[in-house]
Amino acid sequence: MFFASDNTGPVHPQIMDALARANDGYATPYGNDPLMDEVRTRLREIFEAPEAAVYLVATGTAANCLGLACIAPPTHTVFCSPNAHIHEDECNAPEFYTGGAKLTLVGTEDKITPEVLHATIAAEGSRGVHGPQRGPVSLTQATEKGQIYDLDELAALSAVARDHDLPVQMDGARFANALVALDCTPAEMTWRAGIDVLSFGGTKNGCMGVEAVILFDPAKAWEFELRRKRGAHLFSKHRYLSAQMAAYLRDDLWRQSARRANANMARLVAGLRERNTVRLRYEPVANIAFADLPRATVRRLLEAGAAFNVWDGDVEGEDPDTPLTIRLVSDWSLPETEIDRFLDLVRD
Amino acid sequence: MFFASDNTGPVHPQIMDALARANDGYATPYGNDPLMDEVRTRLREIFEAPEAAVYLVATGTAANCLGLACIAPPTHTVFCSPNAHIHEDECNAPEFYTGGAKLTLVGTEDKITPEVLHATIAAEGSRGVHGPQRGPVSLTQATEKGQIYDLDELAALSAVARDHDLPVQMDGARFANALVALDCTPAEMTWRAGIDVLSFGGTKNGCMGVEAVILFDPAKAWEFELRRKRGAHLFSKHRYLSAQMAAYLRDDLWRQSARRANANMARLVAGLRERNTVRLRYEPVANIAFADLPRATVRRLLEAGAAFNVWDGDVEGEDPDTPLTIRLVSDWSLPETEIDRFLDLVRD
Amino acid sequence: MFFASDNTGPVHPQIMDALARANDGYATPYGNDPLMDEVRTRLREIFEAPEAAVYLVATGTAANCLGLACIAPPTHTVFCSPNAHIHEDECNAPEFYTGGAKLTLVGTEDKITPEVLHATIAAEGSRGVHGPQRGPVSLTQATEKGQIYDLDELAALSAVARDHDLPVQMDGARFANALVALDCTPAEMTWRAGIDVLSFGGTKNGCMGVEAVILFDPAKAWEFELRRKRGAHLFSKHRYLSAQMAAYLRDDLWRQSARRANANMARLVAGLRERNTVRLRYEPVANIAFADLPRATVRRLLEAGAAFNVWDGDVEGEDPDTPLTIRLVSDWSLPETEIDRFLDLVRD
Amino acid sequence: MFFASDNTGPVHPQIMDALARANDGYATPYGNDPLMDEVRTRLREIFEAPEAAVYLVATGTAANCLGLACIAPPTHTVFCSPNAHIHEDECNAPEFYTGGAKLTLVGTEDKITPEVLHATIAAEGSRGVHGPQRGPVSLTQATEKGQIYDLDELAALSAVARDHDLPVQMDGARFANALVALDCTPAEMTWRAGIDVLSFGGTKNGCMGVEAVILFDPAKAWEFELRRKRGAHLFSKHRYLSAQMAAYLRDDLWRQSARRANANMARLVAGLRERNTVRLRYEPVANIAFADLPRATVRRLLEAGAAFNVWDGDVEGEDPDTPLTIRLVSDWSLPETEIDRFLDLVRD
Repeated sequence: MFFASDNTGPVHPQIMDALARANDGYATPYGNDPLMDEVRTRLREIFEAPEAAVYLVATGTAANCLGLACIAPPTHTVFCSPNAHIHEDECNAPEFYTGGAKLTLVGTEDKITPEVLHATIAAEGSRGVHGPQRGPVSLTQATEKGQIYDLDELAALSAVARDHDLPVQMDGARFANALVALDCTPAEMTWRAGIDVLSFGGTKNGCMGVEAVILFDPAKAWEFELRRKRGAHLFSKHRYLSAQMAAYLRDDLWRQSARRANANMARLVAGLRERNTVRLRYEPVANIAFADLPRATVRRLLEAGAAFNVWDGDVEGEDPDTPLTIRLVSDWSLPETEIDRFLDLVRD
Repeated sequence: MFFASDNTGPVHPQIMDALARANDGYATPYGNDPLMDEVRTRLREIFEAPEAAVYLVATGTAANCLGLACIAPPTHTVFCSPNAHIHEDECNAPEFYTGGAKLTLVGTEDKITPEVLHATIAAEGSRGVHGPQRGPVSLTQATEKGQIYDLDELAALSAVARDHDLPVQMDGARFANALVALDCTPAEMTWRAGIDVLSFGGTKNGCMGVEAVILFDPAKAWEFELRRKRGAHLFSKHRYLSAQMAAYLRDDLWRQSARRANANMARLVAGLRERNTVRLRYEPVANIAFADLPRATVRRLLEAGAAFNVWDGDVEGEDPDTPLTIRLVSDWSLPETEIDRFLDLVRD
Repeated sequence: MFFASDNTGPVHPQIMDALARANDGYATPYGNDPLMDEVRTRLREIFEAPEAAVYLVATGTAANCLGLACIAPPTHTVFCSPNAHIHEDECNAPEFYTGGAKLTLVGTEDKITPEVLHATIAAEGSRGVHGPQRGPVSLTQATEKGQIYDLDELAALSAVARDHDLPVQMDGARFANALVALDCTPAEMTWRAGIDVLSFGGTKNGCMGVEAVILFDPAKAWEFELRRKRGAHLFSKHRYLSAQMAAYLRDDLWRQSARRANANMARLVAGLRERNTVRLRYEPVANIAFADLPRATVRRLLEAGAAFNVWDGDVEGEDPDTPLTIRLVSDWSLPETEIDRFLDLVRD
Repeated sequence: MFFASDNTGPVHPQIMDALARANDGYATPYGNDPLMDEVRTRLREIFEAPEAAVYLVATGTAANCLGLACIAPPTHTVFCSPNAHIHEDECNAPEFYTGGAKLTLVGTEDKITPEVLHATIAAEGSRGVHGPQRGPVSLTQATEKGQIYDLDELAALSAVARDHDLPVQMDGARFANALVALDCTPAEMTWRAGIDVLSFGGTKNGCMGVEAVILFDPAKAWEFELRRKRGAHLFSKHRYLSAQMAAYLRDDLWRQSARRANANMARLVAGLRERNTVRLRYEPVANIAFADLPRATVRRLLEAGAAFNVWDGDVEGEDPDTPLTIRLVSDWSLPETEIDRFLDLVRD
C-alpha cells in the first residue's frame, strides 16, 4: 500500500534490461554515446520538433533549473504557481542556477489562470530598473496537486506570456501522466501551445533517474551544455542515462506506464468516492489525489502499513473524527490488490 | 584497445547485480533507504571514522564542488595544482558552487610541493580585505597525470595548510588507484594525514555513476545536505546510488578493481619501456600514463582502432618521427590481450 | 512643490560644510580615517552599544543587502513585507548578495503582524531539506507606506523570530523619521527590541549618500568587511563618507532634520484632511503619505509643477472625478510656503 | 611626503565647488539629473563616440566588475595580468559580479605581451565543454606598476583578442595618467585600439568617488543598468556623482591633474636616479614608481613621516644596506617641496 510518492517504486524491468544491455564494452562518455543519438532522434520525432535541442540530466530539479537558467537572467523574475516544485521543493535551486533571479507567485491557487497571470505580470515590472524584470512563466503539468491544464488553458496562458514577450517553461516531471489524461500529442501539449522549454520527466514514471530537457528553439543549446557541465550534471558514463530514456521511449513504454499509474489512481479514487467520510480536495485526473479522511481512518491505514504523506493535520490528535488531509500518489507498479486493500481499510 | 579514459568502460557485473537486487518493491527516497545505512556504516568502518558524515552524489564534479563549498567562503581562494580537475575540467563549477571563490594555482607542476605551497599561501593574503582570503588546499590523489602523493608528502602538505589554519580537501576520483599503489589504509591516506573533506570516487573504478563525499568533521553535515539539494544533486530514487556504492565496498571490490586497473597500466608501461622510440613523461604508478610516441606510431595505433587522447601535437603533421604526447588510461575491465595488441603496434 | 521623494532634495548645509572641512591634506583610505573613529564612537554611544560593529556604505540597497548577506545563507529565506524595499525596489540585489536566498512575503499588508509572521514562518520550513530554510526577518522602519511599528509591535515581532531562532534585520532608510515619531531612544527601537542588524539611513534625511550598517553582535564584523569589499562598496576616499555621517550625528542634526521632515508632512496632511475630495490611505506618521485625489486635482497639481508619484490610476483618463492614488514624500528642506501652495491647489 | 596612494589626497577644489553648486534645490534622482546629460554628452565628444553608453558609479571595483559582467558569462574566463587590480585587489568581486567566471593569468609579467596572450588564449579553451570558455581580455592602463601600453601594443593585444572573437575591457583607474603620458586622444587609446568597455577613472585623479563606465557598443546598455542597480551601485542622489564628473571634464581638469601627477613623479624619479643606492624597478612613465632603497634609507624616510608602501622586505631587519622595495605614488596635489624633502632624505 505504497502511495507515498512516485519516486519510491522500482525501476521498470524494461529499463533495467536496457541498462544491462548498455553495459557492454566501451562507450564514448559525456553524451556522445550512440544511445543518445537514438534518444535525440526519438524525442524529436515524438515532439514533431526536428530542430529541438535535447539533453539528459538525472534529477527533475536539475532539468527545471538548467532550463530556466537559459531563459531567466539574474535580474528577472519567474512567474509560477505558489505550489510549484521550483518554489516549494528545490531549496532555492532556481535562485542558485539563475544567479539570483526571483520567483513571483501567481495568485494563491494551484493552477494559474490567465487573468491572474496577466494581472501579476502587469503589476510586476512597473518600476523600471528598480524592480525585478519580467521573466519566464513556469507551468507545472501535471501540477503538484495532480491537476492538469487542458490545451485551451495552456494556449491562453502562453498567450498572456507572449503578450509580454516572455518565454514559457514547463515542469513536466509528470508530463506523461498529464499527456495520457488529455489524450493529445506531445507537440500539442508543448510547442504548439506556446511552450519554449520543457522538463520531460522519466524518474517518476519508471526510470531510475533521468529527465530530458527539450529546448524547442535550439538557440540556447550551447549555453545549456555549459550550464549543465558547470552545474556538475554532465554524466561521464552518460550511456546509462541514455539507455534509460531510450527504453522509456521504446514501445510506448512511457505512455503505457503513465496510463497504468493514472488507472491505479482512478481505481483508488473511485473507491474513495464511495466512502461517506472521505472528501476529495481536487478532482484527481492524473496520479495524485488529496483527500480528507477522519483521523481514526488515517491511523488505521498507517498501522496497517500504508505509506502516504499526511499533508495537513496532526495524526496524534484526540478527536477520531477530525479530518486530516493526506496525499496519495500512484505509479505504474502499484498492484490493484494493494489499492483494494487500502480501500477496504477506509471503510466507513 | 580502449585507453581513452576510465569512464568509457562498462559497469562491473557485481554492481549491475546489486542494482538489479535493489530494484525490488518500494524504498524510501532521498537517501533514507536502508542501503544507504549500509554504505554509511561501511565507509565509517573502512575509514576508521565513526563520526564522519557520508553522502552520495552522482558525479565527481558534484562531489568536489559541494565538498569545497562547505569549507571555502566566497571571499576566499582555493589552493590547487594547475592540473587540478577543479581548475581545468569543471567549467567553473567550483566558482559556481562556492559563490565566487577564486582558485589560486600552486606552482607550475602537477604535484604540489610543501615549499611551493607555503610560498603561495604566504604570498596570497598579504592584502588584508583587498585580496582573496586564504581558503582550503585541494589535493588530487591520484593526480590527473597519474602521480601519487606518498604519506609523507600528504602529511607535509597538510602541515603547511594547518600552519595557516586552512582545511584540506582531497579530490579522490581515483582514490582507490592511489590507495592500492601506496598499500596503506584509507585512514592513513586521509584524516590521519590531515585531510578534512574527501571525494571518494566510484565512477572511474567500475561504478555507473556514484561518488561519496566524506566530511571527517561532521559539523558541516547539514550545510552539505542543503547545498546538495540546492545543487539538484539529491537523488529521489537514491537507493540506486546506495546500491552501487554498497556493492563497490563489499568483498573489497573497490580495491580489487583498482589493483586490476593499476596492473593493466603496469603491463602497458613495462612494454612501452622496452620500445626505444617511446618516452614516458611521468613515472606511472596508478592507472594513467603520458608518453611521447613518434607520429607514425600514433597514426598506426589510431588506424588500428586504439582509443586514447592525443595530449600534445598534431596527428596530421608531416614528419613521421616527430614525437606526440598521448594519454593512456586503463580501468579494471581492460583485457590483457588488448594491452599486448597495443604494444605490438608500438613496435620500433 | 517637490513631494516626489526624500532623495530629490539637497544635501544639508552642515553636511556640505563638513565635506569641505574634511577636504584637507591626506587621509588614510578604506575606512581608516580619523573621522570614521568619530563616527564609530558616536554611533556606539547613540545606540548604547559599545561592542557594535559599525560600517558605512553609500546606498541603502548596499546597506540592506550586505547586512542581510551576513545572516541569510543562500539556502534560506528572508521573511519580509510585500512592500519591502528589498522585495520591490532592489532589482534582486538581496538574492544577488545572499547568493540566492529567497524572499518570503509575509501576508498582504504593508505592516507585518506577529500572528501572520508566526503563521508564515510555521508554514515555511516544514519540508526539511527540500524547501528553503527559515532565515532572518526583515522589518522596515518607517515602512515604504510611511507607517511605523511601535515598540510593542517590534518586541512582539522579534519574539516570534526568536521563538524560531531567527535573527532580525531592520531596514532603517527612514530610521530617524520613525524614531522621532515614536519619541524613543535608538536602543529601544533596535537591539532592546530584538533587532540584530540595522541599516541606519542618512541619504534620505539630508546626507549626500551614506548609510551606516550596525551589527549589534560584532561576530560577523570581518565577514561584513569582506562582503563589502567584494561588493565593490568599500570606498577608497572613505573620509567623505565618514564626514557626512559625522556631521549628520553632530548637534543632533539627524533627529532635527527628521523632525522637520515629519512636521512638513504633518502640515501637508492636516491640510489634506480638510479637503472633502481627499482620502488618505494610511495614517501618515512619518514623512510619507498616500492619498486618493480626484483626477482633475491631480492634473491641476502636475500642471502647476508639483512633483509626486502617481501610484495608482491613469492621469490621462476621462472622468475628472475618478480618484487617483498619489504618493507624497517630504524632507527637511521643503519650505512651508510650498506645502501651502500645494494645499491651495487641492481646493475642493 | 605622502606617496602612499593616489586615493589619500584631497578632492580638487574645482570639484568641491561643483558639488556645492549642484547642491541647489531639487533634482531628479537615479541618473536622470541634468548634469548627467552634460556628462554623457561630454564623454561622447571627448571619446568621439556618439553612440556610446555612459554610466557613473562610485568605485573603481564597481566600474570594472559591472563592465566585465556584461561581457563575461559565468562559464567563461577573463584573461588578465597577474598584477591586475581585478585579480589582486578586488576580493573576488569579478567572480561575484560575473556569477563565477574565472580569471586566467596571462604570463608572469606586469604588462601582457601579444605573444603570451595568444599562447594563453590558445591553451585555454581546448577542452570543449569541460574547461572554462574563452572570455574577455582585460588590460590595465596605466598598470598597477605604473607602466603604460603604447598604441601599437594596445592594437596588437586587441588584435589577438579579435582573432579569437573576444571583447576587450580596459581598467582605466589611471586612464588620464596614461593618456597624457602617451599624448594621444582618448579615442586612439580606446575604441580605435580595439577596446570595447572602459572604466574611466576619476577618484584617483582628484574626484571624491566617481568612475565612468563607457560601453562603446551600447547593445548591453540596459543590461548594465540592471546590473548596476542589482549591485546596489545606482545612486539615488546621483547628481553628486554627475557633478564630480562634469567638473572633472570641464576645462580639461582631468588631463591637467594627470599632467601634474605625472610631473610630480617625474621630479621624484629624476632625483632618485641621481642616488647611487636607489634602483628603479620599472621605467616610471605615469604616477607610480617601484624602487629598491637600502633599509636604513627606508627607515629614515618613515621616521621623518614619509608615507608609502613597503612592497617587499622587512623594515625591522638588521642589515642597514639590504635593499627593500617600496611603492611611490603621486597625485596632482603633492607639493614640489615635499618631493624635494623626500629626496633630501634619500641622500646616499
